[in-house]
Amino acid sequence: MAPPHGDGSSDMGIPLPAQSDSTRPISTVVFVIAMQAEALPLVNKFGLSEATDSPLGKGLPWVLYHGVHNDLRINVVCPGRDAALGIDSVGTVPASLITFASIQALQPDIIVNAGTCGGFKVKGANIGDVFLVSDVVFHDRRIPIPMFDLYGVGLRQAFSTPNLLKELSMKVFSRLKMQLGSVNYFSFSQIMGCFRLAGYLLVTRWICPRKMNH
Amino acid sequence: MAPPHGDGSSDMGIPLPAQSDSTRPISTVVFVIAMQAEALPLVNKFGLSEATDSPLGKGLPWVLYHGVHNDLRINVVCPGRDAALGIDSVGTVPASLITFASIQALQPDIIVNAGTCGGFKVKGANIGDVFLVSDVVFHDRRIPIPMFDLYGVGLRQAFSTPNLLKELSMKVFSRLKMQLGSVNYFSFSQIMGCFRLAGYLLVTRWICPRKMNH
Repeated sequence: MAPPHGDGSSDMGIPLPAQSDSTRPISTVVFVIAMQAEALPLVNKFGLSEATDSPLGKGLPWVLYHGVHNDLRINVVCPGRDAALGIDSVGTVPASLITFASIQALQPDIIVNAGTCGGFKVKGANIGDVFLVSDVVFHDRRIPIPMFDLYGVGLRQAFSTPNLLKELSMKVFSRLKMQLGSVNYFSFSQIMGCFRLAGYLLVTRWICPRKMNH
Repeated sequence: MAPPHGDGSSDMGIPLPAQSDSTRPISTVVFVIAMQAEALPLVNKFGLSEATDSPLGKGLPWVLYHGVHNDLRINVVCPGRDAALGIDSVGTVPASLITFASIQALQPDIIVNAGTCGGFKVKGANIGDVFLVSDVVFHDRRIPIPMFDLYGVGLRQAFSTPNLLKELSMKVFSRLKMQLGSVNYFSFSQIMGCFRLAGYLLVTRWICPRKMNH
C-alpha cells in the first residue's frame, strides 16, 4: 500500500515506481490502528469523537473517530470487533479493507499505521521503544516460485518523513528512544511468537488520483 | 466474508449468526478469481467482455469481465498484475479488496471464489478433482491468545448450494469427481508447500444491506 520511493529499485531488485509529490500540504491524515485500546490514547489526546454516521459504510463493524486539530483533519480508523467473538479484528485483511475504504471516503494526504509491535532484544529493541518504520515486508507470505517469491515478500518502502522524525525526537517522544539511521524493516506477520512489545509508526503517502496532478 | 450458517454454532464453538434469506432469486453473480489464466476459460465460455470504464474504481490494477447469460448478470473479477513485478496479485489481501469493492459496486446476490488449489492425495484428492467447499479456515493465521486463537483460524461455513451441487454433478462436471457428503475444509494459506493441483468452488451468499429486508 505504501508508494515506494528511492532510486527506482529496491535492495531485492524489485523495480519501484517514482516517489509521489511530497511537497503538497497535508490537510487530512488517517491513522489506521488495529485495536481500539491502541487507538484510545490518540483519540483522547486530540478530543476526537466517534462518527455516528460513518462515511466508511453502513452495516460494518469499522469504527471511525474524527476531529480537527490546528487545521489538520485527524481520522482514526479501527476494524472494530469480530461479530462472533467480540475481539478486535486484527490482521492484514481487515487492515487492508479499512485502509482502502478510508482512502475512498476520506481522501487522506497521508496514512499512518500505528500500534504496538514485537521486536527482538538482540537487535536492539526494548519495551517502550518507538520505531519509525522505513520499510515493510510480509513475514509469512512465502511462495517459492520465481517472481512470486519477491511478490510474497512484498517489500515496500514507507514514505520518507524527516520532519516528523525531527519533531518526534525533539518534542513528543523525547523520553523514548527512536531507532534512527539504519533501516528498520517492519514485518507484517500473522503468526505470533515470543516478541517483546514495542511501538511503531508506519507512514505512507497515498498517491491519490484526485491530487496527482497538483 | 462468508455469512455462516448452520445451527448457530460451529464445530469449534464459535457462535454464528443466522443464515441469510436463501430464497430470493439470484440475478447477479460475482466470480472472484486470483489469476487471469484461471479466469479466462470462464470468460471465454460465457463470452464476457473486459470493462473499459470499471465501476470498481479508477487507477487500480483490478480487472473486471462482465456479460449476461440467460438473464444472469455474470461478473468475473481478478486482482490484476502487481505493478512492480507484472505477475498476478495472489493472496488474501488483494482477494479481500476486490471482493469488498465488488460488493460495493456490483451488489451481487452471490459470490463464487473459484480457482486452482492444492490438495492431499492421502485425503483422497487427485489432480483434476473439483471441490465444492463447505467450510473455510485460515491456514497460517496463528495467534496463541484465548479467543484470538479462534479468530485467527477464522472458521466460516460457505453458503449451502444443493442445487448447484446437483447441477454440477449431473451436467457440467460429470467427468470430474465431486467430493460430496463429508465436510471439505478449504484452508486459505499464503505459505505454499508441495500440493497437488485441484480446483475449487467456494460459494458465499452476501448479506447485502440493500436486500436484507426482502
